Parts: sequence; C-alpha cells; structure tokens
Amino acid sequence: MPATLSELAALVGGRIVGDSQTLITSALPLRDAEPGCITLVDSPKKMESERGRLQILESQASAVVVPAAIDACQLPQLIADDTHVAFAKVIGHLRGVRLDFNCGVDATARIDPSVEIGASTTVMAGVTMQAGVRVGARCKIYPGVHLLEDCQIGDDCVVYPNVVMYPNTKVGNRVVLHAGVVLGADGFGYRQQSGQHVKSSQLGWVEIEDDVEIGANSAIDRGTYGATRVGVGTKIDNLVHIAHNCHVGSHNLVCAQVGIAGSSSTGNQVILAGQVGVADHVHLHDRSIVSAQSGIMRDVEEGQVMLGSPALPSRQKMHEHALVSRLPQLRQDLKNLAKQVAALEARLQAEPNSSRAA
Amino acid sequence: MPATLSELAALVGGRIVGDSQTLITSALPLRDAEPGCITLVDSPKKMESERGRLQILESQASAVVVPAAIDACQLPQLIADDTHVAFAKVIGHLRGVRLDFNCGVDATARIDPSVEIGASTTVMAGVTMQAGVRVGARCKIYPGVHLLEDCQIGDDCVVYPNVVMYPNTKVGNRVVLHAGVVLGADGFGYRQQSGQHVKSSQLGWVEIEDDVEIGANSAIDRGTYGATRVGVGTKIDNLVHIAHNCHVGSHNLVCAQVGIAGSSSTGNQVILAGQVGVADHVHLHDRSIVSAQSGIMRDVEEGQVMLGSPALPSRQKMHEHALVSRLPQLRQDLKNLAKQVAALEARLQAEPNSSRAA
Amino acid sequence: MPATLSELAALVGGRIVGDSQTLITSALPLRDAEPGCITLVDSPKKMESERGRLQILESQASAVVVPAAIDACQLPQLIADDTHVAFAKVIGHLRGVRLDFNCGVDATARIDPSVEIGASTTVMAGVTMQAGVRVGARCKIYPGVHLLEDCQIGDDCVVYPNVVMYPNTKVGNRVVLHAGVVLGADGFGYRQQSGQHVKSSQLGWVEIEDDVEIGANSAIDRGTYGATRVGVGTKIDNLVHIAHNCHVGSHNLVCAQVGIAGSSSTGNQVILAGQVGVADHVHLHDRSIVSAQSGIMRDVEEGQVMLGSPALPSRQKMHEHALVSRLPQLRQDLKNLAKQVAALEARLQAEPNSSRAA
Repeated sequence: MPATLSELAALVGGRIVGDSQTLITSALPLRDAEPGCITLVDSPKKMESERGRLQILESQASAVVVPAAIDACQLPQLIADDTHVAFAKVIGHLRGVRLDFNCGVDATARIDPSVEIGASTTVMAGVTMQAGVRVGARCKIYPGVHLLEDCQIGDDCVVYPNVVMYPNTKVGNRVVLHAGVVLGADGFGYRQQSGQHVKSSQLGWVEIEDDVEIGANSAIDRGTYGATRVGVGTKIDNLVHIAHNCHVGSHNLVCAQVGIAGSSSTGNQVILAGQVGVADHVHLHDRSIVSAQSGIMRDVEEGQVMLGSPALPSRQKMHEHALVSRLPQLRQDLKNLAKQVAALEARLQAEPNSSRAA
Repeated sequence: MPATLSELAALVGGRIVGDSQTLITSALPLRDAEPGCITLVDSPKKMESERGRLQILESQASAVVVPAAIDACQLPQLIADDTHVAFAKVIGHLRGVRLDFNCGVDATARIDPSVEIGASTTVMAGVTMQAGVRVGARCKIYPGVHLLEDCQIGDDCVVYPNVVMYPNTKVGNRVVLHAGVVLGADGFGYRQQSGQHVKSSQLGWVEIEDDVEIGANSAIDRGTYGATRVGVGTKIDNLVHIAHNCHVGSHNLVCAQVGIAGSSSTGNQVILAGQVGVADHVHLHDRSIVSAQSGIMRDVEEGQVMLGSPALPSRQKMHEHALVSRLPQLRQDLKNLAKQVAALEARLQAEPNSSRAA
Repeated sequence: MPATLSELAALVGGRIVGDSQTLITSALPLRDAEPGCITLVDSPKKMESERGRLQILESQASAVVVPAAIDACQLPQLIADDTHVAFAKVIGHLRGVRLDFNCGVDATARIDPSVEIGASTTVMAGVTMQAGVRVGARCKIYPGVHLLEDCQIGDDCVVYPNVVMYPNTKVGNRVVLHAGVVLGADGFGYRQQSGQHVKSSQLGWVEIEDDVEIGANSAIDRGTYGATRVGVGTKIDNLVHIAHNCHVGSHNLVCAQVGIAGSSSTGNQVILAGQVGVADHVHLHDRSIVSAQSGIMRDVEEGQVMLGSPALPSRQKMHEHALVSRLPQLRQDLKNLAKQVAALEARLQAEPNSSRAA
C-alpha cells in the first residue's frame, strides 16, 4: 500500500527533511532501490561507493531513512532514532502483510488421538503427530512437520516445514525451528567388534530451551542416555551439526556449518564462527570465541579468542602466521650470514699461521 | 530393451569395429561392466590399470564406446564423436525410460484457491501451496514440496521432494532444485542487547535466476530487506549455505559444503571449490577461483586463484607451504653455521693477541 | 515403571553391593542424576571431578551401575559385566517402551499399484512410493518418506521421516536412514561451453549395502552411468556429502560434515573424522585414517594416518607444526648468531693487517 513520506513519518515517529508529500511505493536496500522506493542508510560513513562518494548520492531512490540528516543528500530524508526498526515498519506497511493463518488443525494432518494441542495453535497440511505429543498455545506448525512419540513443544513456537523431531524431544517456549531441522536422530556411537561397528544404545533425547532459534537443515542428535541440550536464547545457523550428549550453554551464537562432536559443552555467551569444528569431550568456557574454520581440540578458557586448525589463542596464531610469512626473509638472512662467515673463514685462511705465530 | 551393436550404432550415429551383431543387454562403466554390457572409454590414455595396461583390455564387457578405434582392443568397438552423449543415448535405450508422469495436480496436494499453475505442470502427492503462489508451465513439483505464500516459479522447473520455499521466493525458468533445498529461511542476524541476542527483521526474499541448479539439502537465506540472489546459470552443489543478502553472480560453480556469510557477493564465472568459507561483506571478482577448504577474509581480484585458510594468492601460499616443509633443513643449516662460527671464535681465541701484535 | 535395585539386578544379571531394596524411578547419566535415579560409571578412573575426586561421590543419584565395586562409594552399586548393555536394559525397563507401531500402510500414504511391500512392514502417513518400488519385510517407513520410481529396499530397514530416494536407488538389509537423508540426487557434473555450464548426463544410481547407517540430512549423489556405492557395515554421520561415482568401502566410519568429491573411493575400515574433505579421483586404502578437518588431495596408503589441509602423514605434519611453533626461537637464534659474527668481524677489523703480517 503506497504512502506519502509524511504518512510513513507518522507511522514510525520520525521527522522529515525535504518534500513530505513524496509518494513512496516500495522499500528496498540501497543497491536495489529504484524510483518510487524509500531506502535505508543506517551508517552514512560506511556507505561510500568505490569512488569515495556516498552511495546514497548516486541512488535512484525517491527517499531515504537515515539516523541523522545528511547535508549533501538531495533526496527527501526520513530521520528515525532506530533506523532498522523504522525501515521494518515501513516495509510492513508498503508490502502489506497477509492476514494470519486461521488457527486450527488442517484436515490432512495426521494427529494421534492422545495428542494435546494448545489454544490458537495452527497445524498445517500433512503434519503428523504420534502418540503422546504435546504442543502448547499459539504455535505455528508448518506443512510436513513430523513429531514422533511423546515430543513436547511449549508456547509461541514456530516450526517451519519438514522439521522432524524424534521421540521425546523437548522444546521450550518461543523457539523457532527452520525448515528441515532434525532433532533427536541417533548419535554416532559404535563399538568396534572384530572389525565391525556395533551400534551403542541411543536412548536419550534432545532438549531445546526457551528462545532458541535453529537454522535450516541443522541436525542435533539425542543423548546416549540423557539429554543433548541447547541453552536459553542460543541462536544456531544453517547446516550445523551438534552430536550426542553435547550441552550448549545460554546465549551462544553458533554460525553456519559448525560441527560439535560428542559430549562437548559450552558455557554462556560463547561464539562459534562459521565452519568451526569442536572435538569430542571438550569444554569452551563462558564468553570464549572461536574464529571461522578453526578446530578446537581441547578446553578453551573463559573469554579466550581462538584461531586456526588446530586452534591456538588468536594472538599466538597470528604471530605464527606473521613468522611464516616472513620465512623468505629469514632464509635470505641465513644465506647472507653464511656468506659473511665464509668470508671470515677465507680471510683467516689467507693469513698463514706462521706469520701470525711469528 | 536389449539391442545389437549395429542397432545401437544406428541410434547414436556411430560406426563399428568388430562384430556388429553382438547382443548388448546393459550399459555400465568400466569398473562394473560384465558380459553382455557395453562400456565406455572416453579417454584411452587416462584409463590405464595399475599395471600400466589399458583397463579395457581386462574388461569383461561385450563391447565398448570409444572416441577412436583402440588397436589392441579385441572387443567390438562403437566409435562415436561425443562418447558421453552416445553412451547416455545407449543407456536410455537399454534401460528404457518410464513414461512421463501424468500432468495435473494430485488429489492429496493442498493448493490454495488463489494459486495459479501453468499448463502441463505436474504437482505430486502431499505438495502444499499457500495463497498467492504462481507456478509456470511444464514444471514437475515432486511430493512433499511446500511453497509458502506468494512464491513464484517460472517455466520448465524441476522441484524435487521436500524442497521448501519461504514466502515471496522467486524462481526463474529451467531451474532444478534437488531434494531438501530450503530457500528463504530467516538470515542469522541478531543485535546484542544486555548479553542476549535480539532478532533483526528478516523481511526480504530469495531470488533464483534462470538455469540455476541447487544440490540436495542446501540452504539459502532471505535478504534482510531485499533479495538474496543467485545469478543466471550458476550451479550449486549439495549442503551449501548462502547467507542473507548475498548476491552470487552468473555462471558460478559453488561446490559442496561451501558457506558464504552475510552480504558477500561474487562476480561472474567464479568457482568456489568444496568446503570453502567466505566471510561476510567481501566481494569475489569475475573469474576468481578459490581452492577447496580455503577461507576468504577479504575481496578477491579478478581472475585471482586463492588457497589456504586464511587464503592467499595460490602461488604465494604454495611458496609458503614449500618453505615450511623445508624448515627442518633451515634449522640444520642454522646449526651448522653456528658450529662454524663457534669454530672461528675458538680459533681466534687460541691465538694470543700478543703473538699477533708482535 | 519403578523397580527395586534387586529387580534391576535380576533383569541385567548383575550383583548388588549395598541396599538391594533401594527404589529406583529413573535412569540418567552422571551429570543429570537426581535422587531416585540410578546412574552409570563405566570407567571409574576417567570420571574424576575437577577437584580430583570421583564425581560419583558427589552425585545425588540413589544407585549406580559399575563394572566393579568402588570402595569409596557409599551408594548402592549394581555390578554388571557390560555396564552399557546393563544400563540400556535398565532404561528400557524404567522408561517403558511404547508398543510397536501397527504394521500396515497408512491410509494417507500414496502407493503406486505396482509397488511390492513385504510382510510386517509399516508405512506411515504421507509416504509416497512411485511405480516399480519394492520394499522388503519388517521395515519401518516413517512419515514423509518419498521413494521415486523403481527404488528397492531390503528387509528390516528403518527409514526415518522425510528421507528421499531418487529413481533406482538400491538399499540392502538392516539399513538405517535418518531423517532428511537424500539418496540419488544428480551429481555435480557440468561441461564448460562458451562460459556456461552444461549439465552432463546423470543416469546412474545409489547402492547402499547391508548394515549401513546414514545420519540426518546427509546426501549421496547417483553415479554418472553406474553406481555410487556404500559398502557393508559402513556408518555415516550427519550432514555428510558423497559425490557421484564414489565407492565407499566396507566398515568405514565417516564422521559428520565430511565431503567426498566425485569418483573417489575408500578401502575397508577407513576412518574419516569430522569435516574432512576428500578431492576427486583419489583412493584411500584399507585402514587409513584421516584426522578432523584435513584435506586429502592424493591417494593414501594402507594404514596411513593423515593430518592437515593439504594432508600429510600425521607424524610429518605434527613435526611441521612443532617447527612452526619454534619459529620465534629460530629467529632469535639467527639474530644471536648474526651478532656473534658481527663481533668477530669487528675484532678482525680492529687488528691491523700490517701487524699480523709482520
């Protein structure tokens, strides 16, 4: 639904510099904005073009949301305290938002009679829930979700299409599970027996605490006997693997394609960057940070920043990198020194001992 | 359906050396071929066995497709210009191909009344399409595909089972999406607020241009406000992660398990080998190539080949590798030189100054 | 179902030290065990707390399963030869196990009339099986599984929700496929043609031999013309990628997030640790082992242990690591030596040649 800039300013509680009657039909980021668009400059200093000019000065947009007026900018400006909150509101207004799904259970869902579902929860087409499942209130369960026996989900959760929960998975409140997430598959535990791998019992479960979000196609295995656990407020990106018996702490950030091996654990506010690997049975203490693609082989101290595979404290690893990059110079220094020594030797050789001893 | 070699030669427009009446019942690659099989040798020089003999001379196959007659080979040979096209045709004939699916929408699919579906498109069992979805002509939508609100798919696309598209995903023509692909999940964007991670708005969408193919269980997140985009003709392998706001260029090859972090972009004909990681907000220029398992931390110049984690230009990184591998020698050289110097010192020490000064 | 310790001892064939009438209501691992629980100490020596005391001495548990009596432990102890088998039995008794699913085909499954399904096999809601599919006896096919044309599954297999098999996939007996596994997607094979990537034929299939287990969301691509094969007894973890034409041997362990590129192969009892990458067209011989995050670029000898990216024999790579970590010392040694040489030069300089030659 199009709007004038002054209508949008009223919507977000901002003020206008320039023509308040400018008609806005859509909202797009700077690199995509066309005439009729309002766009966003959240941090004027960062947004310089390759030629050093502010990109916004070259934009086709018809208006821009900014945190403070940009003097050089000819476009009408909508000034807002929190530009991201404001821009999101503008998008919501301009693009419109479909009315929410009707609550209720779709006729094609296959729900065991023993299942309990809370008020105002929507269960979409093709969902299955086996015996003993309990789902709280105000949840959205998208098509193709399969909840095996005795799974429990709290209130206000969003479970996107094709999520699978194995038996006894426990999910808290306000949890968001993106499409294709698998919770509770068997851990990768085998005993070697005459050259063959014999499966160990996998009788535990997965427990996801409140306010966790898990990205598309990530997989978290059940514990051997007890829980594999993800703590309150932890956010997990796409294609992450968390093995059996892991205990991930609270308010962690686990970026895409991280893998954590069996029985490892993290404290609170730990950050694992993309493609990090964590070996089994190690602990990362509170507020530790692991850089992208690093490999953690042993415990990490509180607040430590780790880098490399195998990982070292970041400063130490960067020092190593610097030394390796100076190896050509080191080799050259050594060669030069060898020449100096050879010259010295030659010189001593040239002086007959006799003359000296004279 | 079995055939004589001469029937197959007619099929592929090739010529025969040897018995044209040989009966062929199946077609298999060299390492699997049994009597009755026709097999393929696309490049005779490469296909030597461990004992240096041409593998084809030891094959049980009854015939072989070759680009040019192999003199030493006793088997009947079917000579074809493009051996791979010919072998594929032979397989098609011998294995038969099932008649195509009936067009139409399966009775168990759950299609919103507002959805538009083009001519000759097949929608299989258990597919769901929410309000506003549009699918073009001659598409195959396999079982368990879920298209959320307002998704758009062009003509001649193949969408394999259990693909999920979040609202507003846009897919071009002749796109192939393999099983389990997730397009448009929320980006991994949070703001830190008193030790907790508060979710940023994720209001954008995913846009897949014409002739793109995406491998099984890959995930591409929606943009924050605008598009996450994959350009014309780009091919993406299995289990790849592409984060929010990325713009992947045209005719790229993105191999398995690559991860690209938020807001990064690539030019055209870029190649990312397996398990590569790309940091956020970097740009890889046209025709750059990144070797397997490398980590890209900053922009890459046009045509540059990168290697290592963190990545360096390939030649520089290989030089570093070489120097590191020669460290034992370097250490030894240094020790030897130290001994020489010690010997020199000892010699000078042994000669009393007085005698010299005499 | 609660039990006394003596009832549990009878169940597992163990003996008791302490009060045999202790009532046990649940079984949990050491870090989770509360009063009323029986817990497990499988290896007393390993389970020391940070203060060096046995953790079990600080546990709230009401009893413990042990391999041999722990003298210092006041808790009632249930001594069993194989503690893990015993503990699994105890869990089975205490938690109860739901009766097995009814056999038969759910009414919402979409099964082509030509499909053959063996005795006592269960097919759950929303499963689809296309023409020519054959499934053996005593299998469990969970909701949302899609078997495309002519797939074959042996006896006693478990196929978890949302597994997808492309046409002609062949699966042996006693195979376990976890949720989201994709078997038989097209290989990542293209030919470059005037800057564009033209798809090669992908006409082969995937073959999974007996007793294989594959973790959640892993993907194995079909062969180009023949089979991509996984050998007897091999276990594959979550999010693994195996490309077209690979032949994985028997009794391998392939850990999470490993990627194996096209046409590579492994012998028997090979182990690939987490996040390993294997290049295309290489062979890993029997009993070779690749450490986590390593990258294999060429063939690996029998029994060889490999480390690093690019990988070297483990001992050699660790030697390299050690040398790199001693680079600061090497630099210092070189500086010191340079000073020594400079001092020598200065000394020679100070002595006038004339005096010597005198």
